[in-house]
Amino acid sequence: MDMTSRLVQLNAAYARAIDTEKFEDWPKLFADPCLYKVTTADNVAKGLESGIMYADSRGMLEDRVSALRKANIYERQRYRHIVGLPVVTGEAGGVATTETPFLIVRIMRDGAMAVFATGCYHDRVVADSSGALSFAERVVVCDGGRFDTLVAIPF
Amino acid sequence: MDMTSRLVQLNAAYARAIDTEKFEDWPKLFADPCLYKVTTADNVAKGLESGIMYADSRGMLEDRVSALRKANIYERQRYRHIVGLPVVTGEAGGVATTETPFLIVRIMRDGAMAVFATGCYHDRVVADSSGALSFAERVVVCDGGRFDTLVAIPF
Amino acid sequence: MDMTSRLVQLNAAYARAIDTEKFEDWPKLFADPCLYKVTTADNVAKGLESGIMYADSRGMLEDRVSALRKANIYERQRYRHIVGLPVVTGEAGGVATTETPFLIVRIMRDGAMAVFATGCYHDRVVADSSGALSFAERVVVCDGGRFDTLVAIPF
Repeated sequence: MDMTSRLVQLNAAYARAIDTEKFEDWPKLFADPCLYKVTTADNVAKGLESGIMYADSRGMLEDRVSALRKANIYERQRYRHIVGLPVVTGEAGGVATTETPFLIVRIMRDGAMAVFATGCYHDRVVADSSGALSFAERVVVCDGGRFDTLVAIPF
Repeated sequence: MDMTSRLVQLNAAYARAIDTEKFEDWPKLFADPCLYKVTTADNVAKGLESGIMYADSRGMLEDRVSALRKANIYERQRYRHIVGLPVVTGEAGGVATTETPFLIVRIMRDGAMAVFATGCYHDRVVADSSGALSFAERVVVCDGGRFDTLVAIPF
Repeated sequence: MDMTSRLVQLNAAYARAIDTEKFEDWPKLFADPCLYKVTTADNVAKGLESGIMYADSRGMLEDRVSALRKANIYERQRYRHIVGLPVVTGEAGGVATTETPFLIVRIMRDGAMAVFATGCYHDRVVADSSGALSFAERVVVCDGGRFDTLVAIPF
């Protein structure tokens, strides 16, 4: 299977874990250690390091999921990720550097829908010995910047 | 061609048949007999069988298209399907089980646009002797639940 | 790599050039001469030739980029293209005819987001001697029709 198809599958699995609320599947898509960060295009342009979410190990991602399960915040709304087409911008030493645009729609319990976020995933993707891909790094760069202080759901 | 690419093509052909109003091409993408159902995530979670649309043969799908042509309801607006990346969740006995997220934008005659529906296609896909894929089953699970009583356009 | 994967890459590169405001990369994705036109589904249905943008050479596309850089209009907002799945409708004499749906979200400086345009790219794609694809023709058919008189950003 070519790289584009494999990236399509990795990204599709990522969106599915979140949108079906199988959050426990989400950390498994990362290498360990890893980098997961949610930030905005404005922060990136200004060179600001601060982000909306940050984790550098699978354990931290799992902690996030546990917190999410306890808070039950996700039950108030549903999310739908529409992941665009991946671009491979580089490949070296078994690491592929890729960028993949996304759109997230939020669906409230009353059925109201709105574009919640758009942006681009900036990834470093690695393959394990079986060829399965995972994220060594996923930096989620959101186009907009109006988010709740507590964003519970992974982007 | 690998399975991901073939699923991309099947889904792209599906969206194109609807968005270009070539509705007669739509039933041809299904096996016969088949299952086509439109429902909501809430209904699925509650175990409710009732859906917004239902058909179990290509003939029923063709009847739906005939009704649509007579009603001319589709002329008042236009739809645009943005189909996301397919996930293959299983393959056995020549049947692939897949999930593919979607977003539908409705464009009114005055140019106003709004997110009409989001959701996920839950499919069972089969290949004929030439290798061409078709839907043995397409269950359209919408995230939201505010639809007109008479939804004339296929999802 | 199969045609679907190559089209995915071409379309992803196109969206990336615009959304990251690397506009100078945009003309490089076209053959020379070429046809680039932005129009609406209504205009196409009425047989009207007039469009929102028109260029028939790489030089004209480059002029457009220069004008855009001088006007600085793009700094007021950001765009995000979500490009759907490509359909190959024909292949002959080294030219692939394809259709690819798109959705463009506009993000204002204050973070407000709205669906800006949806539509379908109607393309004629050619490969150079190295196999790299480019657009001999890209006709951007927008579903809606309410655009600013001066649309500065490529679609």
